[in-house]
Amino acid sequence: MVTRGRELYQGKAKVIFETEEPNTYWVSYKDSLTAGNGQKKAQETGKGSLNNIISSYIFKYLNDMGIGTHYIKKISDHEMLVKKVDIIPVEVVVRNIAAGSICTRLGIKEKRVLKKPLLEFFYKNDSLGDPLISENHIELMKLATKDQVMQMEGMALAINKILKELFLNLNLKLVDFKLEFGIDTNGTLLLADEVSPDTCRLWDVNTGKSFDKDLFRKDMGSISEGYIEVINRLKGRLGESEI
Amino acid sequence: MVTRGRELYQGKAKVIFETEEPNTYWVSYKDSLTAGNGQKKAQETGKGSLNNIISSYIFKYLNDMGIGTHYIKKISDHEMLVKKVDIIPVEVVVRNIAAGSICTRLGIKEKRVLKKPLLEFFYKNDSLGDPLISENHIELMKLATKDQVMQMEGMALAINKILKELFLNLNLKLVDFKLEFGIDTNGTLLLADEVSPDTCRLWDVNTGKSFDKDLFRKDMGSISEGYIEVINRLKGRLGESEI
Repeated sequence: MVTRGRELYQGKAKVIFETEEPNTYWVSYKDSLTAGNGQKKAQETGKGSLNNIISSYIFKYLNDMGIGTHYIKKISDHEMLVKKVDIIPVEVVVRNIAAGSICTRLGIKEKRVLKKPLLEFFYKNDSLGDPLISENHIELMKLATKDQVMQMEGMALAINKILKELFLNLNLKLVDFKLEFGIDTNGTLLLADEVSPDTCRLWDVNTGKSFDKDLFRKDMGSISEGYIEVINRLKGRLGESEI
Repeated sequence: MVTRGRELYQGKAKVIFETEEPNTYWVSYKDSLTAGNGQKKAQETGKGSLNNIISSYIFKYLNDMGIGTHYIKKISDHEMLVKKVDIIPVEVVVRNIAAGSICTRLGIKEKRVLKKPLLEFFYKNDSLGDPLISENHIELMKLATKDQVMQMEGMALAINKILKELFLNLNLKLVDFKLEFGIDTNGTLLLADEVSPDTCRLWDVNTGKSFDKDLFRKDMGSISEGYIEVINRLKGRLGESEI
């Protein structure tokens, strides 16, 4: 039985704890919601659990498909055990359809389907507002090695392929998503952080309705309804006991 | 004798005219000064001439060093003839020392000497504020082909090497600069726009004093004095009649 130890890191959406296992962290998902780099804030009871359940489903599914992730297992509705990793301070965004920041930033029309997935890197730094960076900046600031950048690109595109298909089977379009990677104690690059409607955009294929954090960003109502719908569709596809 | 024809384009610092030669444009440098994407504006009599003289020196020098530029010849203090090109809407920035936007954007300490030159791309689009972009965005928006991007990178680094050395011989550090490229009627990629203290940062090796548009951006006094000093040093090195 793993037990929760000292708090290591308090993020906007999760708290990370040590455990007595040197290579295992304990992640507790919070009910807090933030948008616009923390400028808009709210609480929604149960949101942490919903994201923990969805992330568990997706990490488990990706592990099964051969993608290395930090996920070990779900231990309660709002908690999971993960492998200890050092997070690379680069957020990797994959876009299949134009939405959100890229539209205002580059004047690209919302809902434009991109001919091929677009990869973007952002410097994970709250006080700087997570600015867009290129591989040249990653090299200059030594945020990751060239090999790690190539591996993150390859994994991000592979994950995109797998998740696009999974969500399409749930009648959801995977519009875009943000990934974070970490290095485990063996030096292996693993997908880390979370993969949930907090970190991606999901649109219903038929209605175009959002089932993601845009519900909160754009004040389109309670996010729980949308997130619960994602869980129900995942359950229908992957089974109740798959996590 | 080439004569000035119809006005084709009115920029922030220059006006481009047709000539009766189908492959030749007439460039008139303006006395207007802008900074912060046009938010700060001023006029300084003679500024256009100073930039035209400096640009002419530098284009001529780069042409002599084997770099293809749009420059044909200087025809008056504030005017030059150039080859007709279609401008690629990508600004290429080369940085040798951290200064300006990169410091606030990425939290890099001002005056930090970069281990190797940093290349950055910006989307040349005033209404969007010339946002930073990566090669992936250039491909997505079809701003340039992959070959053109590679060629711009290669030329920018070669130009940096040549100009760093030239300015060092004038006791000036080439801190950073912005380049624009265009495609001529033969499909050849050429350095275009201007290369002047409006588009680069030059610091005196001994005093650290700025001889560039930071004089205006930071209200450090009249820019003419600084720009004239650059001309005098160029004249001393390259000769009176070199343009």
